[in-house]
Amino acid sequence: MDWTQQIELAAGRIKGHVQVTPVMTSDAVWDSPVDLKLEQTQHMGSFKTRGAFNTLIGSDVPSAGIVAASGGNHGAAVAYAARSLGYAARIFVPEIAGPAKIALIESAGADLTVVPGQYADAAAMAAEYEQKTGAMQVHPYDAQLTVAGQGTVLREWEDQGLTADTVLIAVGGGGLIAGALAWAQGHSARKIIAVEPETCNALDAALKAGEPVDVPISGVAANALGARRIGSICYDLAKASGTSVALVPDKAIEDAQSVLWRAHRQLVEPAGACALAALRCGAYLPSAGERVAVLVCGGNIAPDPLAN
Amino acid sequence: MDWTQQIELAAGRIKGHVQVTPVMTSDAVWDSPVDLKLEQTQHMGSFKTRGAFNTLIGSDVPSAGIVAASGGNHGAAVAYAARSLGYAARIFVPEIAGPAKIALIESAGADLTVVPGQYADAAAMAAEYEQKTGAMQVHPYDAQLTVAGQGTVLREWEDQGLTADTVLIAVGGGGLIAGALAWAQGHSARKIIAVEPETCNALDAALKAGEPVDVPISGVAANALGARRIGSICYDLAKASGTSVALVPDKAIEDAQSVLWRAHRQLVEPAGACALAALRCGAYLPSAGERVAVLVCGGNIAPDPLAN
Repeated sequence: MDWTQQIELAAGRIKGHVQVTPVMTSDAVWDSPVDLKLEQTQHMGSFKTRGAFNTLIGSDVPSAGIVAASGGNHGAAVAYAARSLGYAARIFVPEIAGPAKIALIESAGADLTVVPGQYADAAAMAAEYEQKTGAMQVHPYDAQLTVAGQGTVLREWEDQGLTADTVLIAVGGGGLIAGALAWAQGHSARKIIAVEPETCNALDAALKAGEPVDVPISGVAANALGARRIGSICYDLAKASGTSVALVPDKAIEDAQSVLWRAHRQLVEPAGACALAALRCGAYLPSAGERVAVLVCGGNIAPDPLAN
Repeated sequence: MDWTQQIELAAGRIKGHVQVTPVMTSDAVWDSPVDLKLEQTQHMGSFKTRGAFNTLIGSDVPSAGIVAASGGNHGAAVAYAARSLGYAARIFVPEIAGPAKIALIESAGADLTVVPGQYADAAAMAAEYEQKTGAMQVHPYDAQLTVAGQGTVLREWEDQGLTADTVLIAVGGGGLIAGALAWAQGHSARKIIAVEPETCNALDAALKAGEPVDVPISGVAANALGARRIGSICYDLAKASGTSVALVPDKAIEDAQSVLWRAHRQLVEPAGACALAALRCGAYLPSAGERVAVLVCGGNIAPDPLAN
């Protein structure tokens, strides 16, 4: 797989459909300056919009339209991209997503089915719908077009002048970090560190087991990072590159959310603060002089602070 | 007054003490792309920190320390700058500031006196304290060092590649726009538009009267933009440059707050959304092809979404 070419293609496809997201160097979230990319300013509040547009534009969409299963952010992104491009979309959302994310998906105009249980239950119903109708399923993380779309984040950040030695990225199913690893492969000696909640540790468990395995999921970030099993594209890229995983407790995630708000008035969901948590709680310890960057990846906090 | 020199001096003084704030081009807050500067990511949530540091570093601070009167953001900025530089600070805050801003000032470690009434009442008490103790008063907007500090915002934005024809800036006492006008004078044909709430219209009233006059103040942005009388530095610069004022109703400010959150997960206070409101409600109507920039200036929303 020529990932560089795939990500360049993705960047061309999604240009004008997605937001170029701002970067800043924070003097206030840690002891040393930290580069932040505020990807939660993306349309629909997370990076997922990139993979969704790349998939829809890069595929022959059948007349039955689009189907997706999602803990929330992916569903919102697919619904948004489908509406923008004029396709019908059916989204299966696990109840665990919570009312804020469910309302977000509704606001994007998709047909929505709320499924009792967790992500895997919604995924099963989406698969059934796909079989029955011929709709095209958009996988949230383990598909080439999805990963290539998410890979445009690091490509864009480098265009914006990123010089950090190390980039911390939160991992759920692994689409975002797979995109970053795929882009970095061909381009830099930059180190990419995976950050997972202790209670949503699909990548860490897979690397320890030597293959993707099912893990139990829970905790404050479960509705965004709670993939039961890491995607195989992510697993292969992480294994090949020797990627390390930093595990963070929920308390550190909540601390990082608080710091992003107090220091910079960036109000993000737990998943969006997860990467910063690793730096602040010491789960990732940089060397002296090592410059660290943190990807802030999602802002769909619950409850929505401006909900009526 | 050589404002260019004053603002260059200010930029040198405050470097390392203030945050370089991010910029983005939004595809989602209006019909055409709009350049945003997210100055609410500044330390203590507003541009006021720039003027506070410039004043404290550029002055001989007496042993009695610092005193300020403030509707909230200026007090927080002065308290923060004073603590960073090792000075004692006494802040007089009008009750109208509300609990979120009062808690913010307390968090910066200043001695705080909450004064019944509005900004003018707190200002009177601060003046009395200044006389009695010999403390140095830091004026929120009508002082050269304050204006020069705020002028670093536009200077920084231009360094970041601002190309817009027009910049919309919210006006309370006028320190921020005075700084921008002072910087623009020497540098560009860029048009600066003042935006005031209909119910906090000190600059508009002054320009119509031919001199600064007292105005009644009320409305959703009053605790940040509710100066009873425009500062004379701002008035003189605005008059000399023929600056236009766009007046916006509270409803448009609330709409702009909602749009910044829904489109980009930027949760700002009413004053921070005021400039965008002028574009969205038509109070400012750009010409065809005119590129517009909006300064997002404050994020200290009440209630604090992460308050315990």
